[in-house]
Amino acid sequence: MRPGRLEAFTDGVVAIIITIMVLELKVPHGGDLIDLRGSVPLLLAYLFAFINVGLYWNNHHHLLHITERVDGRVLWANLFLLFWLSLVPFVIRWLDESAFSPGATACYGIVLGMSAIGYTLTERAIIACNGRDSRVARAIGRDWKGWGSIALYLAAIPLAYVSRWAAIALYFAVIALWLVPDRRFARAAER
Amino acid sequence: MRPGRLEAFTDGVVAIIITIMVLELKVPHGGDLIDLRGSVPLLLAYLFAFINVGLYWNNHHHLLHITERVDGRVLWANLFLLFWLSLVPFVIRWLDESAFSPGATACYGIVLGMSAIGYTLTERAIIACNGRDSRVARAIGRDWKGWGSIALYLAAIPLAYVSRWAAIALYFAVIALWLVPDRRFARAAER
Amino acid sequence: MRPGRLEAFTDGVVAIIITIMVLELKVPHGGDLIDLRGSVPLLLAYLFAFINVGLYWNNHHHLLHITERVDGRVLWANLFLLFWLSLVPFVIRWLDESAFSPGATACYGIVLGMSAIGYTLTERAIIACNGRDSRVARAIGRDWKGWGSIALYLAAIPLAYVSRWAAIALYFAVIALWLVPDRRFARAAER
Amino acid sequence: MRPGRLEAFTDGVVAIIITIMVLELKVPHGGDLIDLRGSVPLLLAYLFAFINVGLYWNNHHHLLHITERVDGRVLWANLFLLFWLSLVPFVIRWLDESAFSPGATACYGIVLGMSAIGYTLTERAIIACNGRDSRVARAIGRDWKGWGSIALYLAAIPLAYVSRWAAIALYFAVIALWLVPDRRFARAAER
Repeated sequence: MRPGRLEAFTDGVVAIIITIMVLELKVPHGGDLIDLRGSVPLLLAYLFAFINVGLYWNNHHHLLHITERVDGRVLWANLFLLFWLSLVPFVIRWLDESAFSPGATACYGIVLGMSAIGYTLTERAIIACNGRDSRVARAIGRDWKGWGSIALYLAAIPLAYVSRWAAIALYFAVIALWLVPDRRFARAAER
Repeated sequence: MRPGRLEAFTDGVVAIIITIMVLELKVPHGGDLIDLRGSVPLLLAYLFAFINVGLYWNNHHHLLHITERVDGRVLWANLFLLFWLSLVPFVIRWLDESAFSPGATACYGIVLGMSAIGYTLTERAIIACNGRDSRVARAIGRDWKGWGSIALYLAAIPLAYVSRWAAIALYFAVIALWLVPDRRFARAAER
Repeated sequence: MRPGRLEAFTDGVVAIIITIMVLELKVPHGGDLIDLRGSVPLLLAYLFAFINVGLYWNNHHHLLHITERVDGRVLWANLFLLFWLSLVPFVIRWLDESAFSPGATACYGIVLGMSAIGYTLTERAIIACNGRDSRVARAIGRDWKGWGSIALYLAAIPLAYVSRWAAIALYFAVIALWLVPDRRFARAAER
Repeated sequence: MRPGRLEAFTDGVVAIIITIMVLELKVPHGGDLIDLRGSVPLLLAYLFAFINVGLYWNNHHHLLHITERVDGRVLWANLFLLFWLSLVPFVIRWLDESAFSPGATACYGIVLGMSAIGYTLTERAIIACNGRDSRVARAIGRDWKGWGSIALYLAAIPLAYVSRWAAIALYFAVIALWLVPDRRFARAAER
């Protein structure tokens, strides 16, 4: 089975997740730019989630680009990933309505951590389907970035109850980890 | 007519159905993870519906993958399927607001049963368009799974008024029926 | 310019229009199937709009299928069509909240009439771009169905103030006009 | 990396942005066409935003059409553009709820100005990836229209506090600038 339709479906779901979050943003009560002040935390949370979901899309793009085959297991691992990503707008809304409470901050880590597990499951399923010697399997390699992200999210969940800022710092760390250009897939595509 | 654009449109509609359900989820009132407790039934209903709609997408993917031609009748049978699938978020909301009432539980069976009929109509239209000896017609075969699903949904509708749990058990049975890997289409694609 | 991306964008917009209407449907207050009674008019209006928008998608599919080239004018005529189609969920909501008032019934005719004009403009732009002797131009022909639809919508707008049922009957007439299989494009594709 | 999937993802996000704005439109309280009067300003703002977002999609279509390669930097510049475009429905809602206040009018300029910067960043990234002598780089040329748009949006932001109509006139000027057919890309595609 070709990965084409999997890409198209994933693009659709991610495009909707990323865009409907804006429906949750409340507009300021006043009519002045300064009234946006009250919306700044939520706008930042939206920006943050946009980058997080954008990173998943970006990585998914690179991963599927060198994948030759997908099977039923890949489809379901991918749906698992999309299910958890689809909960991001829900957490953003909770963060807003509970004024960045520890519970909602921890929940952000749970949702993104489960998404990271979904991403890793998708990678494993792709390797199982394409073979350990396939180009995509060699490009994924030991995937310390994937496992590292899961570990950081796991650490952030209890940490949110100690200090929300420490948990948010860990979420930033994961973003930084992935924003650093990753040459694995580009090298694999060149070969 | 090639099935490409039918796939793309179906992907779009299914991606939206699956994702807008999250707009219906109400966030907890408190700011603690334990406050998610009250959201658990609806989150489970969302997960359940996600799997159900995901199964349709998955099967649709396999079905169209070995379909060579589509015609106007296929397009309309497919729109019939999408119409009923699009009502899933409506039923999920009703399940929530009526605290899993018998009526809403029965309605879930009606909506998914009509979707199952729409899926069977799409299969019949594809067979009519590609011929009884086509690869896709032979792969569909007697389709006892499709007819069995319709029968189970039909049985669940009155059952919801006797016991909601019995109806939900039947909905689980249909999911189990379809989660079992189906080799029909993979075999047909290999040939 | 190839029509591929125009198709993809149109599919996306139509898929969203058709699906977000379900967000407008209000769930029954009770927990019994009989409580759906109050939702029946709106569910029928949703079904009606679903068929109307589905017809546009279906015709668009056939039209673009035999179109070889598109240019900037085609893109803008198509955006004009999508703009008016995107107002369908707005009118459905108004129909609901004003209990199928004459104004909202007339507005349905305005929105669908402008969509029909947008569709005709898209056809004209495609003919201008592909030439009067192109396969697509010959398939469109004199397009009495397109002009007839516009005339029926135009008649329905004032009629809604005399009798809403008469206006709705005209909306049904347009649907019937288009549901009759249209062999123009199939014949053109076979040649 | 081929630009195909970037196009598909952008189409998805733009299709959703353009369509969910309709969820923000409030229906009239009365049941007469004349009751639409109160909705006219917002309907015009919606039309205006539809044209603005449509212009971005149209230009994006032409730009990507002659782009041969994209890389990670292009993906992120494009996500930057999509982030700001996704805030358009937010500003439209604010314009409505604050009765076209100076702050919301200025905010429209900020959001579209940042989108214009995102578009220019995408162009720069595409030139960096395809080379200064590539067909797409020569077609973009000095891009005075891109820079001119940014300048006009920048001027409109403070102007909104002096006169909202003057700011809106500048927004119209940008639209007029882009509606004038642009032969750069058509010429490049012909060569």
